[in-house]
Amino acid sequence: MITEERVRYVETDKMSVVHHSVYFHWFEVGRTELMRSLGMSYKEMEESGVIIPVIETHCKYIAPAAYDDIILIKTEIKEKSRVTITFDYQITKKKNNKVLVKGWTKHTFINQEGKIIELPKDFLKQIKKHEK
Amino acid sequence: MITEERVRYVETDKMSVVHHSVYFHWFEVGRTELMRSLGMSYKEMEESGVIIPVIETHCKYIAPAAYDDIILIKTEIKEKSRVTITFDYQITKKKNNKVLVKGWTKHTFINQEGKIIELPKDFLKQIKKHEK
Amino acid sequence: MITEERVRYVETDKMSVVHHSVYFHWFEVGRTELMRSLGMSYKEMEESGVIIPVIETHCKYIAPAAYDDIILIKTEIKEKSRVTITFDYQITKKKNNKVLVKGWTKHTFINQEGKIIELPKDFLKQIKKHEK
Amino acid sequence: MITEERVRYVETDKMSVVHHSVYFHWFEVGRTELMRSLGMSYKEMEESGVIIPVIETHCKYIAPAAYDDIILIKTEIKEKSRVTITFDYQITKKKNNKVLVKGWTKHTFINQEGKIIELPKDFLKQIKKHEK
Repeated sequence: MITEERVRYVETDKMSVVHHSVYFHWFEVGRTELMRSLGMSYKEMEESGVIIPVIETHCKYIAPAAYDDIILIKTEIKEKSRVTITFDYQITKKKNNKVLVKGWTKHTFINQEGKIIELPKDFLKQIKKHEK
Repeated sequence: MITEERVRYVETDKMSVVHHSVYFHWFEVGRTELMRSLGMSYKEMEESGVIIPVIETHCKYIAPAAYDDIILIKTEIKEKSRVTITFDYQITKKKNNKVLVKGWTKHTFINQEGKIIELPKDFLKQIKKHEK
Repeated sequence: MITEERVRYVETDKMSVVHHSVYFHWFEVGRTELMRSLGMSYKEMEESGVIIPVIETHCKYIAPAAYDDIILIKTEIKEKSRVTITFDYQITKKKNNKVLVKGWTKHTFINQEGKIIELPKDFLKQIKKHEK
Repeated sequence: MITEERVRYVETDKMSVVHHSVYFHWFEVGRTELMRSLGMSYKEMEESGVIIPVIETHCKYIAPAAYDDIILIKTEIKEKSRVTITFDYQITKKKNNKVLVKGWTKHTFINQEGKIIELPKDFLKQIKKHEK
């Protein structure tokens, strides 16, 4: 899944490049759109009573993004355990395909009582269909 | 009520000064601390089922703040109607007392059913005590 | 000029709606795209040595935006003086055309020496062409 | 080095807890104050022509922070190579000493020509003095 964004002025800092924390906003956009493409939007999942908090993040910064650059967020499901899912991201600059960052985020699924639950079956089914 | 903050790197943009939207974060800090000083924290008010959304904002930008500057947020209650309250802010640079911005935010009080309610009596009592 | 954005999770707060400061990020996106449509991107203007800081902002919050909503930013040039320009914004929810906020931002033009300058002639020419 | 911050409303998201990207803002505050305590502020270092971009980040999220919580950022220098430095962070809730997150950020030093340079000698001297 590829999602396109354009760098906003507010996302830059006094180093004249995008602040390193902003990439986590884009990772979030990436996995939102990947989930939507799987036919199960994150919004609907929350409405059904399941939230998917982040439990671990990692990012390698290879080259900086600048104001007004168009960037491409490539998002994939990297691995699943019974109770966790890890998304993998690579962000590139559209103009020259230069890799800007590579990262991943790991998540659990939590129900309305605040308990960790197994990955929802419907969600797993969608993922499998997608992987074929 | 005066609240002190130090400018974070992430709060700057490529103009090498604080982004104009950040002052609204500081206004929020200012009114949080003013309410706490009145003996009625915003957190407690939310826990009692009342939220205080922003319905109007205004800000004049006079001089820029830079990374690592210590800034002072002066917050006052400017006016109250039966159903709205307006906070007034002036932010200065601590080092030289230079005025950076002046602004205000207007709010209503909303109950758990999402209805606008009159300003809570306890809150008004605290304000009056404070004004004496 | 209409620009479309989708509400990011990070843009919400514990009131479950978009934080009031985020609308200023979207106003910025709106005027960036308006300037690009006039044939004079803000990025190019900065590269030519002119910056356009915000000197005043105003916003009325009419209805809240929620996570994953698609919003439309309508941006217009409201007025110009010899040394200032004011952009006008109206943000609506795409799904139902509901108006969420109305606001404006006022700007000056600053050269590399940090002095306020008159609105660049090329820029004014583009605006006039656009207004016809 | 321990730095204290209070959670701002804007730092929460619709999950009613602090957004995971905000911890990187606090890590930044932590290392800014650690550097200041070493007698070499990051601001001065930038003014001398050296910037210290982030090249890698990692964070484990153990428990969430809520609005208005006071949090403590504990920052240490974890390791140094000839051209990189890694800061280590642990953020706890002040009220109950609960660990919220553990993370680290890795950095290089870049001069005005944009080249990676060795860690400045003055900086290393200050670190050694501190480690005694």
